[in-house]
Amino acid sequence: MTGFSHFTPLVQSLPATIPFVGPEAQERKSGKSFRARIGANENGFGPAPSVQEHIRIAAGDVWKYADPENFDLRAALADHLGLKPDQIVVDGGVDTLLGLAVRQVVSEGTPVVSSLGAYPTFNYHVAGFGGRLVTVPYLNDREDPEALLDAVKREEAAIVYMSNPDNPMGTWHSAETISAFAAALPENTLFVLDEAYGEMAPDGALPPVDAFLDRPNIVRMRTFSKAYGLAGMRCGYAFGHPDTIASFDKVRNHFGMNILTQIAALEALRDQAYLADVLGRIEASKGRISAIARANGLEPLPSATNFVTIDCGRDGAFAAAVLAALVERGVFVRMPGVEPLNRCIRISAAPEADIDIFEEELPMALAAAS
Amino acid sequence: MTGFSHFTPLVQSLPATIPFVGPEAQERKSGKSFRARIGANENGFGPAPSVQEHIRIAAGDVWKYADPENFDLRAALADHLGLKPDQIVVDGGVDTLLGLAVRQVVSEGTPVVSSLGAYPTFNYHVAGFGGRLVTVPYLNDREDPEALLDAVKREEAAIVYMSNPDNPMGTWHSAETISAFAAALPENTLFVLDEAYGEMAPDGALPPVDAFLDRPNIVRMRTFSKAYGLAGMRCGYAFGHPDTIASFDKVRNHFGMNILTQIAALEALRDQAYLADVLGRIEASKGRISAIARANGLEPLPSATNFVTIDCGRDGAFAAAVLAALVERGVFVRMPGVEPLNRCIRISAAPEADIDIFEEELPMALAAAS
Repeated sequence: MTGFSHFTPLVQSLPATIPFVGPEAQERKSGKSFRARIGANENGFGPAPSVQEHIRIAAGDVWKYADPENFDLRAALADHLGLKPDQIVVDGGVDTLLGLAVRQVVSEGTPVVSSLGAYPTFNYHVAGFGGRLVTVPYLNDREDPEALLDAVKREEAAIVYMSNPDNPMGTWHSAETISAFAAALPENTLFVLDEAYGEMAPDGALPPVDAFLDRPNIVRMRTFSKAYGLAGMRCGYAFGHPDTIASFDKVRNHFGMNILTQIAALEALRDQAYLADVLGRIEASKGRISAIARANGLEPLPSATNFVTIDCGRDGAFAAAVLAALVERGVFVRMPGVEPLNRCIRISAAPEADIDIFEEELPMALAAAS
Repeated sequence: MTGFSHFTPLVQSLPATIPFVGPEAQERKSGKSFRARIGANENGFGPAPSVQEHIRIAAGDVWKYADPENFDLRAALADHLGLKPDQIVVDGGVDTLLGLAVRQVVSEGTPVVSSLGAYPTFNYHVAGFGGRLVTVPYLNDREDPEALLDAVKREEAAIVYMSNPDNPMGTWHSAETISAFAAALPENTLFVLDEAYGEMAPDGALPPVDAFLDRPNIVRMRTFSKAYGLAGMRCGYAFGHPDTIASFDKVRNHFGMNILTQIAALEALRDQAYLADVLGRIEASKGRISAIARANGLEPLPSATNFVTIDCGRDGAFAAAVLAALVERGVFVRMPGVEPLNRCIRISAAPEADIDIFEEELPMALAAAS
C-alpha cells in the first residue's frame, strides 16, 4: 500500500520544508552543544525570578486543564494596556495567532501580501491554507509601507502582514507611518501588525494601544517570548476590535493553553520592575554587540528589537560563510533568508558570557569566511 | 463600520459555541469555588513527584524555545512503545492532534463519521474545517463499529473517529473488534483511533502497538493528560505509518510546544512505578464511586477509563437536574450531551477527599432533582 490517498490536494501539495531548524537539531547533527545560544532572539536574561518561583509553586497543579477563557490573564492584560478583555485573545505565541488569523481569511488562491524576507512562519501558515503569497522588497532594510499598500490594492489582498519593529532586520517605522498605512488600507484587508518586539521599541514607534480599536480589519499581536523571556512557555496575545477578536474564538483550540503558561505570563506582567531592568540589559548588550561588529569592520544596523542585525559588508554567500563558521565554533546565530537582507547576520542580546564568546569567535569566523 | 468583511464564508458561518465551558467560568458565574473538581476526567492524583521536581528544576530555562522536533520525547516514546521515532508525532494534546488530522483530510462538504454523543472537540474541528458530520447512535452505551462502518461506506467518509476506551461512557471494545473494524475500512478513509484513556484499559482492549503500522489510513492518539496527570501541560502524541505521521509535519506549529511540557512528559514516561501506583489508585477510586452510585440506587457503567459514568435511571432532564444540584453544591461534574447517553453523569476518579464530598452531596442532589 502506498500513502494515504485522501489527504486534501492542498495538503498533498505542501512541501515538507519548515520555517526554522532548531538549534537542538544542529547540535544533534554536529554532536556538539552550542556554547552561546544567540540566534533565535530568545532572551537569555531569562524570566523574572518571581515568574520562576510561581512556576515552581504551581508545579503540582498541572493535572488541571487551564481555564479555556484565559480570563485572569486577559483581565490583567486589559488592565495593563488600558483595554477591555473582549478586545484581547490569548494563545500559544504569535505563531499560533498568526495561524489562526490566516485560517480565518485565507483559502485556496487568496492573495496575501508580505515583505520579501519577512517572518517565514507567517508564510508557512499562508502556504498551509493555500494562500497566494505576494511579496514586496524591503527598502533600505525596512519594510516598505508604500509598496505593501500598492501590492494590497493591486492584488486585492485579504491580509497583509507587517512587523514593527521588524524581524529579521531590527528596523522600525514611526507610529505615524504605521497609522497612515493602516488608514490607507481597504477595509476588507486584514492588517496583521506583529509587535512581538514592541517592548524594545523606542518612543514613537508604536501607535497608541487604542489607535485602531474601531477598525475591525486591524489586529495587533504581542508576545511574552521576547522581552519577558518566556519563549519556551508559548504565550502571545492579539488585540483589536472585539468583533474580530471574538472570531478567533470560533477556531482556536480552547483547551490548548498550558496552565503554567497562564501563571507565568500573569506574574511576568505584574513584575514590571524586572522587565525594566531586563530592557536596560538588552540595550547594553545591543550596544556591545554593535561595538564588536564595528571593531571587526562590520556595520550594525540600528535596532528596535532584542537583537542586532549586522551587515557583513559583502554578499549573501559571504554572510552565510560567516554564519557557518560561527555555528561551527559553537555560536548559534541565524541570518535573513533572501537578498539583499542576507548580507547580514542576526545576533540576539544576551548575558555577557554569551557575548564574550561571540566577541572571541567573530574575528576567526570572519577570517575563515574570507 | 460593521465587522471585518473578508473572513472566509466558512468562518463567518461558524457558531460562537464551543465544546466545553471550563469549571473556572462556572466558578466566576456562581462566585463560589468548586469543592471537588471531578468533572473533566483530569487526574487529581497529580503528576509524579519526579515530574514536579523536573518542572521546578527547569523553571529558569523557559527563555528557550522547545526543540521543534520533540526529538528526545519521540525517542523516549519510541523506546517505551517499541516504535521508531518517525512513527510518532508529538503536539499539545489530543485536541491539537485531532485538529491537525481533520485539517489534513477535511475541506468544505467532506463527509466525516463519528458517534452521536462522542467527543465534541472532534466535532468542533470538523465544523471548523467545513466537514459534513454524519453520526451513528451508540449501541448499549458503546460505540457501534458495524453502524460506523456502514456509515463510512454509505457516505464515502474521508475520516472516521472512534475512542477506545470511550469517552463519555467509559465503555470499551476488544482489540479484536477494533482490529476487525480497522481491517474492514476502505483504504481511503482515515481512522482516528483516540486512545486517550488507553493506560486505564483492561488487558485485551488495546490492539498491539504495531497492529496497524503498515496501514497509512490509521492513526492512533494518546495523551499525558489522563493517566500521567498532566492535562494542564498539553502533551499528546499520534502514532502510525511514517508517511502519514510525516504529513503532520506539513501543518503543525513547529515551535508550538512548551519546553516544560517536553521535560514533564519525558520524566513522566520514565517514572512507570508512579504510573502503576496511580493506576491502582484510580481503580480503587472507581470502585468507590461505583459503590456510592449503587448505595444511592443508581447504576454505574463498567469503566475502562479514569472516570465512572453513572446511569441516573431516568431521562436526560433528571440527570441534568442531578448534575445541576451537584454543581450548585460545589461538585464539578459533567454529563454526556445527547440522548440516550444523557441519562448519565460522569465522575472522575480522584483522591479520597473529593470522593468524600461527592458521597456527601449525591443523596442531596438526588433529592433536589426528584
